[in-house]
Amino acid sequence: MNSTEYIVDRRELHFVIIESLKAGELCKFHEFMEFDEEMFRMIINEASTFSEQVLAPINKNGDRQGCRIENGSVLTPDGFSNAWEKLGKGGWLSMNSPSKFGGQGLPEVIAILGKETQLAANQGFTVGASLTSGASNLIYTFGSKEQKSIYCEKMYSGKWSGTMCLTEPHAGSAVGDAITCATKQNEGHYLIKGTKQFITNGDHDMAENIIHLLLARTPDSPEGTKGISLFIVPKIRQDGSANDIKVLSIENKMGIKGSPTCLLSFGESNDCHGYLLEDENIGMSQMFSLMNEARLLVGLQGLAGASAALQNAWAYANERTQGPSSIHLGEKAKIIEFPDVRRMLMQMKSITEGLRALMYTTAWYADMATHGPEENREKYQDLLDLQIPICKSFGTDQGFLVANLGIQVLGGAGFTQNFPLEQNARDQKIGSIYEGTNGIQALDLIGRKFNSKNGQLLKFLEEELNWFDKNIYDDEIKRWITEWESYRNIMFESIASLKNIGEIKGKNAYSLYAVNMLDLMGDVLCCFNLLKQATIAKNKWNEFQDKEVPREIFLKENEEARFYWNKLRTTEFYVWSVLPRALSNAKTIKNCNLSPLKAHL
Amino acid sequence: MNSTEYIVDRRELHFVIIESLKAGELCKFHEFMEFDEEMFRMIINEASTFSEQVLAPINKNGDRQGCRIENGSVLTPDGFSNAWEKLGKGGWLSMNSPSKFGGQGLPEVIAILGKETQLAANQGFTVGASLTSGASNLIYTFGSKEQKSIYCEKMYSGKWSGTMCLTEPHAGSAVGDAITCATKQNEGHYLIKGTKQFITNGDHDMAENIIHLLLARTPDSPEGTKGISLFIVPKIRQDGSANDIKVLSIENKMGIKGSPTCLLSFGESNDCHGYLLEDENIGMSQMFSLMNEARLLVGLQGLAGASAALQNAWAYANERTQGPSSIHLGEKAKIIEFPDVRRMLMQMKSITEGLRALMYTTAWYADMATHGPEENREKYQDLLDLQIPICKSFGTDQGFLVANLGIQVLGGAGFTQNFPLEQNARDQKIGSIYEGTNGIQALDLIGRKFNSKNGQLLKFLEEELNWFDKNIYDDEIKRWITEWESYRNIMFESIASLKNIGEIKGKNAYSLYAVNMLDLMGDVLCCFNLLKQATIAKNKWNEFQDKEVPREIFLKENEEARFYWNKLRTTEFYVWSVLPRALSNAKTIKNCNLSPLKAHL
Repeated sequence: MNSTEYIVDRRELHFVIIESLKAGELCKFHEFMEFDEEMFRMIINEASTFSEQVLAPINKNGDRQGCRIENGSVLTPDGFSNAWEKLGKGGWLSMNSPSKFGGQGLPEVIAILGKETQLAANQGFTVGASLTSGASNLIYTFGSKEQKSIYCEKMYSGKWSGTMCLTEPHAGSAVGDAITCATKQNEGHYLIKGTKQFITNGDHDMAENIIHLLLARTPDSPEGTKGISLFIVPKIRQDGSANDIKVLSIENKMGIKGSPTCLLSFGESNDCHGYLLEDENIGMSQMFSLMNEARLLVGLQGLAGASAALQNAWAYANERTQGPSSIHLGEKAKIIEFPDVRRMLMQMKSITEGLRALMYTTAWYADMATHGPEENREKYQDLLDLQIPICKSFGTDQGFLVANLGIQVLGGAGFTQNFPLEQNARDQKIGSIYEGTNGIQALDLIGRKFNSKNGQLLKFLEEELNWFDKNIYDDEIKRWITEWESYRNIMFESIASLKNIGEIKGKNAYSLYAVNMLDLMGDVLCCFNLLKQATIAKNKWNEFQDKEVPREIFLKENEEARFYWNKLRTTEFYVWSVLPRALSNAKTIKNCNLSPLKAHL
Repeated sequence: MNSTEYIVDRRELHFVIIESLKAGELCKFHEFMEFDEEMFRMIINEASTFSEQVLAPINKNGDRQGCRIENGSVLTPDGFSNAWEKLGKGGWLSMNSPSKFGGQGLPEVIAILGKETQLAANQGFTVGASLTSGASNLIYTFGSKEQKSIYCEKMYSGKWSGTMCLTEPHAGSAVGDAITCATKQNEGHYLIKGTKQFITNGDHDMAENIIHLLLARTPDSPEGTKGISLFIVPKIRQDGSANDIKVLSIENKMGIKGSPTCLLSFGESNDCHGYLLEDENIGMSQMFSLMNEARLLVGLQGLAGASAALQNAWAYANERTQGPSSIHLGEKAKIIEFPDVRRMLMQMKSITEGLRALMYTTAWYADMATHGPEENREKYQDLLDLQIPICKSFGTDQGFLVANLGIQVLGGAGFTQNFPLEQNARDQKIGSIYEGTNGIQALDLIGRKFNSKNGQLLKFLEEELNWFDKNIYDDEIKRWITEWESYRNIMFESIASLKNIGEIKGKNAYSLYAVNMLDLMGDVLCCFNLLKQATIAKNKWNEFQDKEVPREIFLKENEEARFYWNKLRTTEFYVWSVLPRALSNAKTIKNCNLSPLKAHL
């Protein structure tokens, strides 16, 4: 651990991916037969090293230098171009992309650790990189054979980068209000005209070409989201000529300053070529098909920020001395001796590991939904769909909370730019906003996700949350599970109570405390996944317990024992000291006070 | 209201100060006989105008330009010097300072609105200014006749500014570890030698002289806090010569960039003169005598930030359109129509007004403790002492929460520097750290404050929280009070449970969830003070109800009716949708999980 840099907690990643989620077993599926558990272990290590050695060192540059426009082009901070090249060449941009066009074809539960560590090392750099994966995967999914062969390999390798151009200045979250238009030409391409806002990596100097995936409206298309089509709009056309795209400005932002957020004008001189992806008017559903991946990625930004913050704060608390020690008399106290500091670190640790347990499980659901046994695919797809808005919202809100706790652990030092925590918090703040605000995620959860397929998603969750067979655990674990079960029951009661409110008081009342519902589920699910980990950790720990050495001794000497011991303490803390937040959310939902609708705002 | 500037909510301030706390009645006390309610109303307006017109316009400068060192001196952002002069000349620096040396001699409950609006308009500027008040009040309280006549008037008028030099690089919050030394000279002054860190406005170009109030240790003084003395250390000595003080650096910070945070070296050339304040070795208790004022002020920074954020977000939600309206068919929706946005605004509004209700009441306690009827002074002093750590911690944490909700209401725009919200959040972040971290406040609360005078402070609180005579209220208010009472009871049960834990499990267990105890009390007390306001607002509202006009009509047309209506909705929201947070804190305290002490961190 380090209080100023980012070092990956490889032990935790091995535990979560290999020991807990048993990723090795995925290799029995056709798609992953070329891999084995040992390879996964190697990838965990190599991906970690890449993030630490290539991305972390330029994180500060991104923030301090930011991006700038010179002669109509965006210039990125020192070191970003070089890192981009290594990212592409190393295959770190395409871990979960199909191997057909040079992707690595790895399971999601492996690819996710690449994304987590990249984001933790450098949020500003990585949010842009992730969009390249998203854009190229869209082309792979919906593109013609020709389009795939033109774009996919170049994008997977980072030679070209990608963007998603959805938002327009007047429309914000109301994507259906887009007015950018696309008019078909006799030659087959479309002419694009319009302005797009908040375009991450909309222009930059890191790749040879930038491929915009852009939503636009064709003439006479239906109103709203039903009339939106998706186009490939390259910065440089196949014949090498520049497309008619102009960077109007870049935003001055609170964070992720290493990533240029552009206002782009398409077709000012009526010469912006765009190429339709598949068919007209299906742009929204095409976008939605990649929504899960994109939203999980934003949730990961929260987890990643939390993870880096935890390490920095933990290391600092072990370095910093202050006042006299009450443990080692005559010495100065390390601040980690103070109960309040320990509480903050445990809060950071339990939330971080809870988020990781949830999100990696969600990634594993994605693998099972696509590659697992046919008969269970629908179940895992439903669980995935249900958990995505929770990963996104709860992940970003809690990640921000953890970063701020980290600042607090450092005290005055945390408020200075001598430590990476304040940048971490600023970088993360965007997470609750983009890719559908957290409020929109909560509405998606209680609207679409609760109600689709006649409530089947929730039924699968109920099944899943009957996971534990309490007969096989020892008393300690049993107590934790029993306590957690009471919250799980409160969660399902709250869902029922919310539905009842919706029926009696109508739609606005139903949606008023959607965010509380999401947060309540977030806590119950994070704790559930931590408890599953704890059952494994407890068995491992018991192996150490057999040895006739006092606990404090082997905890100090044995890193493995320490890992499992701390994993158990982390779970315990979540059960007794974090999970109670669910009570507050449950009560608020039950009260369902309508003053926000009645107030004259 | 305005989404990019700060406009004071004068109506709310008049309500809180004049209608609810009945500040006019303070004028019957000897000290305030020269004032009357009408004058207080005028001061509310004028102080508001000063903050809006002089401080708000240079808020952005402070952040964007920051401070810099040139030729060994700190230069402040454009407009700061000019504003400083107006602050001093207008008497806004000395609202609660004694009139003897040119102070305004106003009650705390009036002075607080000056500080709130100044902080809301410009946190970076005002945090420095506040230290001048603190430093000069220290000299007024403990200085010799000569010291008072040299410093007080010049500092009250802003001709000279002040600092508090406590922290040293190696010591942080452990003030007793200070090693800066002060050696008495035959001429009567002391020679100071040492380094002080994180000194707000430690050097700048706004005033003619800077008067440092500095903690140092005399040779052979007792160890720890018992051997600390307080010195006046001017930048420029009485004879016009420069004292031996050097600015080593200024911090690069997350926020309050308009305020230079200095690393100062005293006596590098062994020629730094300091003048003892009263006596040796009583520095800590001298500092403590001003602690209440200083800590309330930091709490106010949270309230002020929350207040500005609320206005910006509320205004933006009324400006910004997005998607089709479901209320005004055919029109675009203002985002304020969306339930989730309304929930966020109500959360911001109820927390902001709850904090204000708590803090202004606390200021009123200070007036009553000093100037009220003799027989009640101890009670009010005890209530004041008990509530100060809550005002400081809960104020800063909740203020930061509200600013972040404000960013969320604005969406992507909130993350850009086109709106003041992201700066507001960054500026506020320091509040939970300085003037005793929020963890230290919580320990002060459950340690010193719970236990001093054999628990008398809590007994007075219990008395105070029996305030409501439910027979005199209507059913609606009665329901709210009954609900709040159940939380009040939970609070006292939690206090009892915590004491029990301390007795059984010891000191570390007792202090582990101190922060939860403080937050629980914060919610109960904010809601209590809002409910007191609501009883008044309800009576006023009932006067409007008598009129035979439909509610929606007079709410639209009558600003007064709207104010009282919204105040009632705000209170209602706190009771049913904010107060449930107390359940989470109570359960966590009760669980008192010891994993933070057991984990091998």
